[in-house]
Amino acid sequence: MTDRDELRIALIGAGRMGADHARRISGRISGARLAHVSDLSLDNAKRAAAGADCAVGDDPLAAVHDPGVDAVLLATPGPAHEELLLACLERGLPVLCEKPLTPDSDSALRVVRAEAALGRRTIQVGFMRRFDPEYVHLKALLDARELGAPLTLHCAHRNASSPPGFSDDMMITDSVVHEADTARWLLGEEITEVSVLRPRRSALAPEGLADPQLVLMRTASGTIVDVEIFVNCGFGYQVRCEAVCERGTALVGADHGVLRHTAGTWGGTVAADFRDRFERAYDDEVRRWVAAARDGGIDGPDAWDGYAAAAVTEAGVRAQATGGWAEVRLAERPPLYR
Amino acid sequence: MTDRDELRIALIGAGRMGADHARRISGRISGARLAHVSDLSLDNAKRAAAGADCAVGDDPLAAVHDPGVDAVLLATPGPAHEELLLACLERGLPVLCEKPLTPDSDSALRVVRAEAALGRRTIQVGFMRRFDPEYVHLKALLDARELGAPLTLHCAHRNASSPPGFSDDMMITDSVVHEADTARWLLGEEITEVSVLRPRRSALAPEGLADPQLVLMRTASGTIVDVEIFVNCGFGYQVRCEAVCERGTALVGADHGVLRHTAGTWGGTVAADFRDRFERAYDDEVRRWVAAARDGGIDGPDAWDGYAAAAVTEAGVRAQATGGWAEVRLAERPPLYR
Amino acid sequence: MTDRDELRIALIGAGRMGADHARRISGRISGARLAHVSDLSLDNAKRAAAGADCAVGDDPLAAVHDPGVDAVLLATPGPAHEELLLACLERGLPVLCEKPLTPDSDSALRVVRAEAALGRRTIQVGFMRRFDPEYVHLKALLDARELGAPLTLHCAHRNASSPPGFSDDMMITDSVVHEADTARWLLGEEITEVSVLRPRRSALAPEGLADPQLVLMRTASGTIVDVEIFVNCGFGYQVRCEAVCERGTALVGADHGVLRHTAGTWGGTVAADFRDRFERAYDDEVRRWVAAARDGGIDGPDAWDGYAAAAVTEAGVRAQATGGWAEVRLAERPPLYR
Amino acid sequence: MTDRDELRIALIGAGRMGADHARRISGRISGARLAHVSDLSLDNAKRAAAGADCAVGDDPLAAVHDPGVDAVLLATPGPAHEELLLACLERGLPVLCEKPLTPDSDSALRVVRAEAALGRRTIQVGFMRRFDPEYVHLKALLDARELGAPLTLHCAHRNASSPPGFSDDMMITDSVVHEADTARWLLGEEITEVSVLRPRRSALAPEGLADPQLVLMRTASGTIVDVEIFVNCGFGYQVRCEAVCERGTALVGADHGVLRHTAGTWGGTVAADFRDRFERAYDDEVRRWVAAARDGGIDGPDAWDGYAAAAVTEAGVRAQATGGWAEVRLAERPPLYR
Ligand SMILES: [Mg+2]
Ligand SMILES: [Mg+2]
Ligand SMILES: [Mg+2]
Ligand SMILES: [Mg+2]
Repeated sequence: MTDRDELRIALIGAGRMGADHARRISGRISGARLAHVSDLSLDNAKRAAAGADCAVGDDPLAAVHDPGVDAVLLATPGPAHEELLLACLERGLPVLCEKPLTPDSDSALRVVRAEAALGRRTIQVGFMRRFDPEYVHLKALLDARELGAPLTLHCAHRNASSPPGFSDDMMITDSVVHEADTARWLLGEEITEVSVLRPRRSALAPEGLADPQLVLMRTASGTIVDVEIFVNCGFGYQVRCEAVCERGTALVGADHGVLRHTAGTWGGTVAADFRDRFERAYDDEVRRWVAAARDGGIDGPDAWDGYAAAAVTEAGVRAQATGGWAEVRLAERPPLYR
Repeated sequence: MTDRDELRIALIGAGRMGADHARRISGRISGARLAHVSDLSLDNAKRAAAGADCAVGDDPLAAVHDPGVDAVLLATPGPAHEELLLACLERGLPVLCEKPLTPDSDSALRVVRAEAALGRRTIQVGFMRRFDPEYVHLKALLDARELGAPLTLHCAHRNASSPPGFSDDMMITDSVVHEADTARWLLGEEITEVSVLRPRRSALAPEGLADPQLVLMRTASGTIVDVEIFVNCGFGYQVRCEAVCERGTALVGADHGVLRHTAGTWGGTVAADFRDRFERAYDDEVRRWVAAARDGGIDGPDAWDGYAAAAVTEAGVRAQATGGWAEVRLAERPPLYR
Repeated sequence: MTDRDELRIALIGAGRMGADHARRISGRISGARLAHVSDLSLDNAKRAAAGADCAVGDDPLAAVHDPGVDAVLLATPGPAHEELLLACLERGLPVLCEKPLTPDSDSALRVVRAEAALGRRTIQVGFMRRFDPEYVHLKALLDARELGAPLTLHCAHRNASSPPGFSDDMMITDSVVHEADTARWLLGEEITEVSVLRPRRSALAPEGLADPQLVLMRTASGTIVDVEIFVNCGFGYQVRCEAVCERGTALVGADHGVLRHTAGTWGGTVAADFRDRFERAYDDEVRRWVAAARDGGIDGPDAWDGYAAAAVTEAGVRAQATGGWAEVRLAERPPLYR
Repeated sequence: MTDRDELRIALIGAGRMGADHARRISGRISGARLAHVSDLSLDNAKRAAAGADCAVGDDPLAAVHDPGVDAVLLATPGPAHEELLLACLERGLPVLCEKPLTPDSDSALRVVRAEAALGRRTIQVGFMRRFDPEYVHLKALLDARELGAPLTLHCAHRNASSPPGFSDDMMITDSVVHEADTARWLLGEEITEVSVLRPRRSALAPEGLADPQLVLMRTASGTIVDVEIFVNCGFGYQVRCEAVCERGTALVGADHGVLRHTAGTWGGTVAADFRDRFERAYDDEVRRWVAAARDGGIDGPDAWDGYAAAAVTEAGVRAQATGGWAEVRLAERPPLYR
């Protein structure tokens, strides 16, 4: 495509996340525009497409096969991903796939193998933390070994409250999946086993949900990652990661913003939710993906990363059941992803 | 223009700031593209235009009159501004003019009056702090009177080092001009007088430069703004503003980023320069200006703000000479700007 | 006195501050005990002496002349100080005199000259900030010139609310007097002139009080000290001092304590008052004074410091009246204080 | 004893910790004095006693039986504690016993039972964190349930480097013992089981030491306490505890002190060691113990707390060996300690 042409994106899934992406592509990302918006609810699709001169529909496969589409942003629920990703691979379309890649590691592995058969990476997974300026800074620090080797990561991942229907295993598959990817990326190695502890349950958690939980992950080199996942913490959205290294520590997610003194207190406000906290990361993620997709490729976590995250969260869910350590079962890594 | 058309921008001035804007328009801002890049150095213009499918030239007026141009981003040195702004007004082109509006308040007033004669605001001045998320938060706090009325602002504006040729009056006209605008905007009123104190001079300041200086400004309601301007502070770029109100204080510019512990210390790193610190503000400034310019208007500080800032800095330069308070001389505000 | 003997202290003035000191001497300071407690209100004296095996009275001169007294802690209002200090000098008793030394510089100079005639320093003034660990750290930093020479100090001194009867000149004489001493001590030089600005007045200030005020002080070397004094800030007690030096800055008084996240906010609590904030400084002040007094001397700010602070605050009160700079008038410094 | 009499203390053990206490008692604590200093090294004893008018010896039992002694501060290595504590119980002398109470839970239980037979609590254990102002604040927060019930505690305990001979089990018995007590105290319940994980080992740790380690403790109510113990972290001494509760979090040990900006960084310095960090806590601990001991009692953690801490650390050492959870074995709590 020439410099003047815009990347024509099909947005599949126009729920809250998809609608956000629609606004982003139309209003904040240069070099790309919405060409097709698809949602099982045609109303959702129309609303997200509002103002954009693009096709609107409720058939996701039609969006993939629309000849006026150069790339796909996949923001449907996970169960729809496998079929759509395989269709994109068939057409060779670059995809930005909101996490999870697919709902389980078996299906994820099928996607990985299909892409490996294609021979080039066209699927990017939406782990947006990799684009957050603080995480990028931490990654550079760790890679440069400025503080020596990383030995342990202490993570906290807190939401003000969980949405209706949020279940015990979603603590792992929906939430801790971010720490699984973050840890793999920051440490540059695979997670090999997972254990889940259940501290005293918050009386404010919805019935049936063990909240908070403490997830322990061990990597190939022996680094331990502990994650407090607490989805009804009450006070806001907070994501922290402290890397403890041989010669020092580095913390991502310390409090910032306008600092007030009033009514006997000092301090500031906490982010309301993940969009608020990671708005800039989403922008940078999509911007860099658009730039890469214009050349037919990706610039971020790939299908293997999506598969590995699924394998880690599956181990986590098994560990929830047994109370012990559960092994992460990974297939052999195809050469494409090495 | 339709939703599909991109705003065609003439970038006039392709030095460091202009080149930054060129990258921003091409890579980060949707709905707009470079249509013409002009610089007295044709090489600069070519370099900034690289990759963009646009006209390149060394005649700024030709850029203004290029029929393929919908709007102008003016990033030349100040002395060229008046002629070009008047030319833009004549064509009715929206302009984003990097500060200063013009080098002095007399010429600024001519621009204001020409625009007032035109009858609509098409000139926006590049005071990017108004788009910084923390400043935006502070402005909302003050407007809502959450902390009561603002009584005083304590500001610090520090650069690691000053560029060659940076002179005493530039402390005011180039640097404190930002605080002049910030204070007018945050407080919603005009500055009426200025005084400048010279503390003990840093031995590390270049010969002939009294650095730091302490600038005091008083507003119509009596609020006092004190500004430490220190352009050779050595440690980085830092901009702080603490609003002291009747029921509390609010500080913009507290330290943040990755928090490290190493070698007996805790802390983080300081921004290197204003582009580093205000990158997101520049993006938002240009993005919102592009959106407004597509409708022929502006969305930010206007020509009156540019004129008023010039009048304040002129009073500051007079105050540098006398050691006392210098009155800010403002013409009557045309109805267009009320 | 032998190691086993305790220093026998007469506490003169048993109001809030004196009662605090009574508890300190009895409960927290080794090597000293209350021997005589005197207050114009015998009830106050009895209450402060409770539990201590000591004389109680309402005649301050009797306390000074009590043969069972080795040292005096003077905590009466300022107007009583001169007569009592001169009486102590006559007996050669070490004194810890709560600020001010005396209510004005003329009387302070008489005390200085009487002590100079005695030929040794026995009067210490209660500027407790000199014993606060953070201030001590800052003083060491500045003395070592680690950050280069200090160029300016930005100070804020805030109280939740002012006591009844607090007047405009007390903003200077009661409150800013601490910054006058702190600046002289940190910078190691005299203050030569003072100016006072009145920002917009807080509607929450008591009638007749211009609150806040902005006090500017210039030292012999040209260093400028700005002080925001705000005695009805509403949110608590806060004392800050930022030293801006040639190669960096250092701030005393940043927020600390338990860090909470709750109800959408992060932060902590602000000290309620000066006793809360400086409790440890008071302990260290008295402890070190007791140790020195056992040898007949002092270990802290001396009578000259008390006199110089009075001279600075007098200039401040004159500056309040004129709106301009007022010169600090200092007598020649006797050799005893060099 | 009358108000005028000083508590006559036998200091047994005059190593680094004991010598610190000697200075504290002589110089900073009112109402008490050294009456007898005993150390196996008579030189140590003499050095610590310097300036105090007291007996000096190398026979610890002689110190306990010295008729001129009212109370004992026990600062010898742990193995000597049982015999001396039993001797103190026999004489009914109040004791402040540096941790550990005794080296193992069996001997600790013998001490507990001997004290229970005596029928009143005269033994206090030196868990000084209970006297640190931030910990005291946190305890009050938790007890008041301001943030709801505590669900998990995240702790970090870091030393710049470990002393020669520091072994794997000492990570638990010497270091984590503090978190064992802190957790029991803050949560007001017993720890029931312990698990120890070994993250990747720091290449900077001394040979044979697995450093850092991650210790997990579960309490009776199910609250989980995780502790990173890292005794060669390189950058200083740091103790943090974050309580995660139903409606918010509270962190003890956030960075504070003078805040500097210099050479491209912002931040402050880290405490060098535990005496630096907890100096004020030690003062308050000894001061309150002296006040209580004058009445024959204690005011702080008791023998049961010392015993329970030993039982927790024994479980920790077993857990180090097995890699799994080890049960904390506690005898029945005598009524004296309920
Ligand atoms: Mg776009
Ligand atoms: Mg663009
Ligand atoms: Mg005492
Ligand atoms: Mg003592």
